[in-house]
Amino acid sequence: MPTDTNHYVQAVLERNRRMVAKTITLVESALPEHQAQARDILNELLPHTGSAIRVGITGVPGAGKSTFIESLGILLIEKGRRVAVLAVDPSSKRSGGSVLADKTRMEKLAARQEAFIRPCPSGGTLGGVAQKTREASLVCEAAGFDIIIIETVGVGQSETAVATMVDFFLLLMIAGAGDELQGIKKGILELVDAIVINKADGDNIPKAQRAQHDYAAAMHFLRPSTPTWSPPVLTCSALETRGIDTLWQTVLDHRRKLSETGEMKEKRRSQALDWMWMLIEEGLKEKFRANSKIKKLLPRIIRDIEKGIASPTEAAGELLKLMDN
Amino acid sequence: MPTDTNHYVQAVLERNRRMVAKTITLVESALPEHQAQARDILNELLPHTGSAIRVGITGVPGAGKSTFIESLGILLIEKGRRVAVLAVDPSSKRSGGSVLADKTRMEKLAARQEAFIRPCPSGGTLGGVAQKTREASLVCEAAGFDIIIIETVGVGQSETAVATMVDFFLLLMIAGAGDELQGIKKGILELVDAIVINKADGDNIPKAQRAQHDYAAAMHFLRPSTPTWSPPVLTCSALETRGIDTLWQTVLDHRRKLSETGEMKEKRRSQALDWMWMLIEEGLKEKFRANSKIKKLLPRIIRDIEKGIASPTEAAGELLKLMDN
Repeated sequence: MPTDTNHYVQAVLERNRRMVAKTITLVESALPEHQAQARDILNELLPHTGSAIRVGITGVPGAGKSTFIESLGILLIEKGRRVAVLAVDPSSKRSGGSVLADKTRMEKLAARQEAFIRPCPSGGTLGGVAQKTREASLVCEAAGFDIIIIETVGVGQSETAVATMVDFFLLLMIAGAGDELQGIKKGILELVDAIVINKADGDNIPKAQRAQHDYAAAMHFLRPSTPTWSPPVLTCSALETRGIDTLWQTVLDHRRKLSETGEMKEKRRSQALDWMWMLIEEGLKEKFRANSKIKKLLPRIIRDIEKGIASPTEAAGELLKLMDN
Repeated sequence: MPTDTNHYVQAVLERNRRMVAKTITLVESALPEHQAQARDILNELLPHTGSAIRVGITGVPGAGKSTFIESLGILLIEKGRRVAVLAVDPSSKRSGGSVLADKTRMEKLAARQEAFIRPCPSGGTLGGVAQKTREASLVCEAAGFDIIIIETVGVGQSETAVATMVDFFLLLMIAGAGDELQGIKKGILELVDAIVINKADGDNIPKAQRAQHDYAAAMHFLRPSTPTWSPPVLTCSALETRGIDTLWQTVLDHRRKLSETGEMKEKRRSQALDWMWMLIEEGLKEKFRANSKIKKLLPRIIRDIEKGIASPTEAAGELLKLMDN
């Protein structure tokens, strides 16, 4: 192992925050030599990971995710935990000014020595976004953070990816935006281990309770309870720090139950395999899109299919054949 | 065009039932020379397709799909329509004795000259199942069947594929099996244009109405209404032929509304593109799985990931690299 790599590894294991940040920057780098070194470092860190509790949190903008994560993070620190927050932000490349660029987000949590907060900017692709987030979370685990919170804004493919890298996946909602899914991605309800209706404070409490009831009914359809777990629908007020502790007890309860039956170990095992297959699919599609002959032919083929003068089956066959040459 | 191909094309256009069946057999064949000829035939038939109404019907075994399709088919024939029923059966290869092997299914409908019923046996893969079904339905359209019903048993990947090849996708359910999703595939509610609760007869009527109410509430969450269409939840008794006509009026209503706004044309256009991309993804995965170096390495890699001694990211990269050599 080269000295430099060894230096990174030792510093992360010694919980050197500056070097944790530097290692994640290396992990995120697109340069081939950085990627090679990051791979070496991750291989050394891998045996020191696995004991943290990994929690994924998603929800539409406006659901109060920052306030919620800050409340939860401070509660956990008060319980003696060390908390890393990784925020997957698919908008960071697109919009320039992203929600996460706001330095005032989670100010109180960021000030704590036991917390580590880091946005994960993305190149837009699944492989780009989530691969780096997964690896960054392993760096944090090796650095002794025993709770990893992965935040994602409920758009794009990121939630599905995040759901495959956490032990507990939480959907944060608010009442009063109608009883439809408030723009959340389809299929998300089927991935969650709990729903929390935030902003259940003041005049909003009856509305939040109504939403709680409605979501509980919908969940009944969508996420059939296993003998071990029925995803509950809770309410909270992140602003008034009410309901946060109950939610955390739910996470621990889930962990205890699934660990007793062996389902937690199995979940992580199958997540690792799912993760590999997701990356392979993504990689295959990238190879396809990067093929220069395909790039040249594709626009005409799409036009012909849209006009109804080409058959999709024939077109797919023709394009796939170009991969072999 | 070779004489033989021309013969197939002419016979299908002349609505020769025996030759329709023979053409579908050719389409389903795995032999390269048959596939080449089938492609030629389909290209000739393509301009004669597009005006049929394509309806997909799914539902768990026991929901009464056969009785329902028979009732609907006979109703349509009485309205002067010609009806083709293609039954996608992913179990046909696995189980040997499949539900569709039962010759007594839809006996009354099968006896009608205006009906054409055909099981589509499958090789298990999406490309295998659904590609052939899509092409078989085009053969039926060219042969003047103006209603194409594609049936799928609610398991595996087949519904998603079927949803991309129909104008109207219907989920058939029954009451009384609890209020959970009765084993139906996740995500299916988000694809459907209507739900029908079957077996709403006799003592079962109150239960069916309760189920209707529950599903309507769940649909509210899952399938936000567009300005043009809110998927309704209906009840029917296929056995007593009640509610079938209402369902058909719903299909026509859906068609009229989406045609007026141009959404139907757009739906078919994007379905054709989705279809191409689905086949490309499937084809890429097949290429991956068929690679002999990957085949050799994969079992060890999977074992190492399951043991936690290999990183999924590194494994995916290693396997993808083998595709290039």
